Amino acid sequence: MTPVPLETLNAAEAQTFVAALGEVMEHAPWVAESAFAARPFGSLQALYQAMVEAVRNAGDARKRALIAGHPDLAGKAAREGKLTADSTAEQAGAGLDRLSDEEFAAFHRLNDAYKQKFGIPFIVCVRRHGKESILRAFERRLHNDAAAEQDAALEEIFRIAALRLDQRVAAPDRLKVHGRLSTHVLDTHSGRPAAGISLELCEIGAGGSARLIRRAATNADGRTDTPLISGMPIPIATYELRFAVGDYFARRKVPVADPPFLGVVPLRFTVAEPEGAYHVPLLVTPWSYSTYRGS
Amino acid sequence: MTPVPLETLNAAEAQTFVAALGEVMEHAPWVAESAFAARPFGSLQALYQAMVEAVRNAGDARKRALIAGHPDLAGKAAREGKLTADSTAEQAGAGLDRLSDEEFAAFHRLNDAYKQKFGIPFIVCVRRHGKESILRAFERRLHNDAAAEQDAALEEIFRIAALRLDQRVAAPDRLKVHGRLSTHVLDTHSGRPAAGISLELCEIGAGGSARLIRRAATNADGRTDTPLISGMPIPIATYELRFAVGDYFARRKVPVADPPFLGVVPLRFTVAEPEGAYHVPLLVTPWSYSTYRGS
Amino acid sequence: MTPVPLETLNAAEAQTFVAALGEVMEHAPWVAESAFAARPFGSLQALYQAMVEAVRNAGDARKRALIAGHPDLAGKAAREGKLTADSTAEQAGAGLDRLSDEEFAAFHRLNDAYKQKFGIPFIVCVRRHGKESILRAFERRLHNDAAAEQDAALEEIFRIAALRLDQRVAAPDRLKVHGRLSTHVLDTHSGRPAAGISLELCEIGAGGSARLIRRAATNADGRTDTPLISGMPIPIATYELRFAVGDYFARRKVPVADPPFLGVVPLRFTVAEPEGAYHVPLLVTPWSYSTYRGS
Amino acid sequence: MTPVPLETLNAAEAQTFVAALGEVMEHAPWVAESAFAARPFGSLQALYQAMVEAVRNAGDARKRALIAGHPDLAGKAAREGKLTADSTAEQAGAGLDRLSDEEFAAFHRLNDAYKQKFGIPFIVCVRRHGKESILRAFERRLHNDAAAEQDAALEEIFRIAALRLDQRVAAPDRLKVHGRLSTHVLDTHSGRPAAGISLELCEIGAGGSARLIRRAATNADGRTDTPLISGMPIPIATYELRFAVGDYFARRKVPVADPPFLGVVPLRFTVAEPEGAYHVPLLVTPWSYSTYRGS
Repeated sequence: MTPVPLETLNAAEAQTFVAALGEVMEHAPWVAESAFAARPFGSLQALYQAMVEAVRNAGDARKRALIAGHPDLAGKAAREGKLTADSTAEQAGAGLDRLSDEEFAAFHRLNDAYKQKFGIPFIVCVRRHGKESILRAFERRLHNDAAAEQDAALEEIFRIAALRLDQRVAAPDRLKVHGRLSTHVLDTHSGRPAAGISLELCEIGAGGSARLIRRAATNADGRTDTPLISGMPIPIATYELRFAVGDYFARRKVPVADPPFLGVVPLRFTVAEPEGAYHVPLLVTPWSYSTYRGS
Repeated sequence: MTPVPLETLNAAEAQTFVAALGEVMEHAPWVAESAFAARPFGSLQALYQAMVEAVRNAGDARKRALIAGHPDLAGKAAREGKLTADSTAEQAGAGLDRLSDEEFAAFHRLNDAYKQKFGIPFIVCVRRHGKESILRAFERRLHNDAAAEQDAALEEIFRIAALRLDQRVAAPDRLKVHGRLSTHVLDTHSGRPAAGISLELCEIGAGGSARLIRRAATNADGRTDTPLISGMPIPIATYELRFAVGDYFARRKVPVADPPFLGVVPLRFTVAEPEGAYHVPLLVTPWSYSTYRGS
Repeated sequence: MTPVPLETLNAAEAQTFVAALGEVMEHAPWVAESAFAARPFGSLQALYQAMVEAVRNAGDARKRALIAGHPDLAGKAAREGKLTADSTAEQAGAGLDRLSDEEFAAFHRLNDAYKQKFGIPFIVCVRRHGKESILRAFERRLHNDAAAEQDAALEEIFRIAALRLDQRVAAPDRLKVHGRLSTHVLDTHSGRPAAGISLELCEIGAGGSARLIRRAATNADGRTDTPLISGMPIPIATYELRFAVGDYFARRKVPVADPPFLGVVPLRFTVAEPEGAYHVPLLVTPWSYSTYRGS
Repeated sequence: MTPVPLETLNAAEAQTFVAALGEVMEHAPWVAESAFAARPFGSLQALYQAMVEAVRNAGDARKRALIAGHPDLAGKAAREGKLTADSTAEQAGAGLDRLSDEEFAAFHRLNDAYKQKFGIPFIVCVRRHGKESILRAFERRLHNDAAAEQDAALEEIFRIAALRLDQRVAAPDRLKVHGRLSTHVLDTHSGRPAAGISLELCEIGAGGSARLIRRAATNADGRTDTPLISGMPIPIATYELRFAVGDYFARRKVPVADPPFLGVVPLRFTVAEPEGAYHVPLLVTPWSYSTYRGS
């Protein structure tokens, strides 16, 4: 999807404007219609706020209809390919399109319990979460009362909208919807950045299963050429960075044990703020290593 | 098996002596018989040396017979329960009794290749190794020449004998056949030993599979009440220590992220010296950790 | 002074008993006389408690006399050599016999202010303090009211008494009056304890001046043969451990910069609990180091 | 001194050119005259190379005269104010204008020994050195033979020239004559950059004396607003960074010991490459700290 410049939207007729932004809120083009009246927008942030205010100022029936218009997570509609394009991509990004039968059953059960208690579908901005994190949120929110849960649903809708806007509109400013995960490796045996270290970023699931997200190698500065994750929220999840430290020191002919004390070094950590900056470095010798959340 | 005091052996008749030590060298009671002549032994080390010398001074035919008397690793005899009690226990300790079909085939193939090249069974002191380490040794030794390989086989037989002696004989001195793996956890957030941290020791197999070896918890001094491994060689293998750091800080009401940055912290390292002392501590805050090979 | 066995004291006549313990409380042999009645003592702790109780149960006049019997810190009596042997040694141990004119004036001024406010001499167990720590306590306690300060004075008298008892009496149990300061050096460049590292322990005074307390070198285990401080309280003060790391790596022919990045590594820390165990290790490569309060 | 744009020099007449650059080589305007012929220069590097080549291609007599034209370090001419403006500033920058009598005597002795052996003054680019480093270089170079020492003298003259050119000429490119020393502080107790930490950078002299070079404080990112040293060579010397860690944690109301275990944390390190990038971070909790040479 090529983003539309904000100025183009500012100059557009209602029909074009709504065509561009009508799907920012699921099945609710009236939000874009309402925002149209507030043109022109000095920033993407202002456009976003106008859409949020349109919802906040709407009557309760419209709010409930907006909420009710969202699909179940990992639900029947998803299995049957009946979701909007946005929802399809979002659910797939969080891995909801490749659930095991057991996980599918868990989602099914939680969806039912939630709908029975609240009469609305469970809404969460899935691009900010890994699978386990969605399930944890599900369990936690089932304990809310109806009013709190309506508020929670709207907040999630606004988060979804912010990400959809971020993809659709080009503007000088950016919404704060992206995080950043980076690493670097310092070889404290030789006192220099460790170049050429192969590494993997995995997401760690329940039970310790690992799903490879990305492979990379450190450059002459001990960093990866691009951040491990950027331009998107970092899904709330547990990750493991795995560094091929043994190979690195072997290539450098550093005398080590046989087999070496450190082969692949795993750093395991959990992301709680999808829009945060997570720098997770490795300081390493053939006999020791350390890490910390840096900035 | 209750160990026999060295002094009892020193005072014993030949028949009793050989009954006690005849199986120290597989199917070769003549080694014990030969050592009997060198009584009395001032130390277990002296008894061990006498048995080693008996083999070294034997003719080549006897040496080759001694070697040939050893069973295949993970071989047909093992599957059919035809090993000596010692060999059965030793092969099981290294996990050779629970091979996958694929691993069994690998051993089978290597056994055949080895026998075809050298005409003798492949001998390794399996209690000093994990499965992968045995396979690596196998591949490496296949490249030896026959003379080097006969020497290697005898060295392994002596290692096996030392461990069998260590189990059978009580003496004031001990053979250097045991290693020691220990840990401790220091909470550098509060400046004290971390008490009550649950931890697991796993052996990491090819492909990253983890086999639980032991569960433990740290005491008030941040250590486990007993070493993680002691009284035996530490099998050459890759290990992972997994510390439930998130639970620990939650119990101490330390403010952390939700979910916490550090949940389970894995320390991964490889043991190369089965008789060595490996101290692998964890220094940890809710936002950082480090480890090193200590002593 | 050769310690007297507790059993000897238990069997002694009153005169001998008081001769041995009369000076445990400064100029107050009546405390030993009173404790004599409680013989026999099953432990040094019981003897100590009996003396403490004798004071606690005494009338207020006796308590004030006990307090008043103590000399000024770094006072005229000290300069003129008129202190008891115990007080002389104790004040010298804390460096009060080598004050600069300025420091002497500070003590003089505080002594006067204290006496004017409370009518008693300022009492502190000087063996538990460095010079700056005494001055800080002085300033802090000047803000107390008279009742709190009488309690504080008695507590310090009990601490002084415990240390004097510890020196005078041999018993199976020990009073908890000693601390312990130790270090060890781990070479994480080569993965082993760093042997043969020269080190100095200095006390750091106001303005950063350093007073050498002890020189030592690490043994094969990376530790000093004896703790840096033991068998006495660790004076409350700031310390610096200085390790000749550059020389160590040069001897080991490790390639480093010229001059090396790390020459002498200082670790600076402050002791707050004189009876505590302080383990302050150094983990070091030619390019990095770390320390922590260990146990 | 306002730098002259390179293009201005390229367009200048000989007289102006030599007026601008005649002092780049001490008392040797002929070098600038010779370089004038090679105009125009595409870069500062090209201009510098032209001046270097002018010297290299000169006859031996001219080279020796160039060398002989340099003043003694910390010599009589300096004391009497008879140096060129450049030399005066350079020697003062290295602290040679505030030598103790003892140090002055040491320089005097070395100057004499050097002149007696080689017949030329000892030349070193003092802006790249601290006092001790100059003395070490002096002692080392006294062992050279005359040819090696003539080469060494020219190399130092070229380094001096590069720094003088860097100050005099503005160009799109820069000569590689500057280093960079920076720090940052990470609070691993709370998992964020440590803001508002006061710090001092000192140069450590022989015997441990400290000379304050700069005071600074960390900003919200845990860094100083500008590098501690930049835009100049970092003199080869031992430095100590001193961080007011105790005050920082006290302000944050972190529970610590009284007095705190860590008050002022010193990091001591030595710079060997004046043109290098030295990043020396502090990772710190109230109970632990670490540092390393970063990049």
